Amino acid sequence: MRNVRVRLSYDGSRFFGWQRQEGFESVQEALEDAIESLTGEHVVVHGAGRTDTGVHALAQAANFHVATRLDDERLLFALNAHLPAGGVLNELETCDDGFHALRDAIGKHYVYVVATTRFRPAFGESFCHWVPGRLDVARMREAARVIVGEHDFTSFASAGSPRRTNVRRVIGLHLVEGRGRLSLAVRGNGFLYNMVRTIAGTLLEVGRGKFSAHDVERILEARDRSLAGPTAPAAGLYLMRVLYPQGVWPRTRA
Amino acid sequence: MRNVRVRLSYDGSRFFGWQRQEGFESVQEALEDAIESLTGEHVVVHGAGRTDTGVHALAQAANFHVATRLDDERLLFALNAHLPAGGVLNELETCDDGFHALRDAIGKHYVYVVATTRFRPAFGESFCHWVPGRLDVARMREAARVIVGEHDFTSFASAGSPRRTNVRRVIGLHLVEGRGRLSLAVRGNGFLYNMVRTIAGTLLEVGRGKFSAHDVERILEARDRSLAGPTAPAAGLYLMRVLYPQGVWPRTRA
Repeated sequence: MRNVRVRLSYDGSRFFGWQRQEGFESVQEALEDAIESLTGEHVVVHGAGRTDTGVHALAQAANFHVATRLDDERLLFALNAHLPAGGVLNELETCDDGFHALRDAIGKHYVYVVATTRFRPAFGESFCHWVPGRLDVARMREAARVIVGEHDFTSFASAGSPRRTNVRRVIGLHLVEGRGRLSLAVRGNGFLYNMVRTIAGTLLEVGRGKFSAHDVERILEARDRSLAGPTAPAAGLYLMRVLYPQGVWPRTRA
Repeated sequence: MRNVRVRLSYDGSRFFGWQRQEGFESVQEALEDAIESLTGEHVVVHGAGRTDTGVHALAQAANFHVATRLDDERLLFALNAHLPAGGVLNELETCDDGFHALRDAIGKHYVYVVATTRFRPAFGESFCHWVPGRLDVARMREAARVIVGEHDFTSFASAGSPRRTNVRRVIGLHLVEGRGRLSLAVRGNGFLYNMVRTIAGTLLEVGRGKFSAHDVERILEARDRSLAGPTAPAAGLYLMRVLYPQGVWPRTRA
């Protein structure tokens, strides 16, 4: 048996989220099925994190153990030939037996894409969240600075699997404008369930003038989900990168 | 009655082409239906040109005559509310009675988008044509220079409606590389049926080494469609702009 790790992209509108579930095709299932139909091996694929239905990934990370003797290059091409449209492996390599995509991850990059055009986009309804009307981006940037840093993010997390702690560190939160789009680029050492989408939903309320940066400070301190803005729609969210310690997955660029 | 002209975008994968046809929803039909359900008026929308199923438009032009007293701004918003997902009007204005989107057009811009990534794109299968493997872009540029100018483009046109002449002028043909995409930007005073897609298909054969620039010269001179490359898939083609004489549609930027 060897341990194989992959980077993969998927169009979240084509799958029912990352995690395998009965009766709905998930990315995990599509990948496990591709491995099984190629090698005959029934394996469990470990993802670096779950993404919900509609959430996209440019470079999700995952690993699995297989016995096949196909070399990495052939395995990569053959698995891509077995994956359904909307999902593709971009990198594949045999790695240390001990590597685990979820346990070894030390951070993630996400981008949340808002269309700020006057009319709903003709293209890419599944690939952005359309917010017509003016957004005060300077005000959103001021509130973003409150979110950066190590905080208890209970106010920004939907109820999900129980966790040891709700403290996470947001390392960067940048707003980039251009071509009718406003993108929120978020980096952190880890994210609670729906945390990026709740940060996006809350910053959009700031942009609309409903909350101030001071309100966001107050919401963060209250540790009460009911105070923050709504969870922004899945269609705007992209998992851009999963980070590993220097030397653990060195070939890849962050 | 007033004459109204519009610029519109549409995702070609959501419609069965521009032209109304029984049993398949076309862009023309969607727009005519939106006008009828808003105003009760049964109108014919004149497009600047037909696009086939799968071909996208960022700024198609069209006009129609209506009696409604809704002002331009309200008509624009209300029609957008009646259009199905995948189609949107970006501009609307009342214009000279004599304006006709097709007859007055003096040129068009198209872009053909090729994905040159190693694996098929996870996103945008309907929005580009994936060509794995190396393309010799310098060689394609050399062949593109042969196509620019006034020529009889019979070799680059599928059989379509009969036309007075197959002479057209290609004003510019540029290849732009970047981010795993190769885009062919084409400007001309008019295009024959499938002409841009046949130019794209032929230049791709040049990039693969099957044809030389000299071959393309020979193909052009032969006036024989069977000699050129295949018609490239509709998914890669975007109608970017329809041009009108200075002063006829002055508000818009080319």
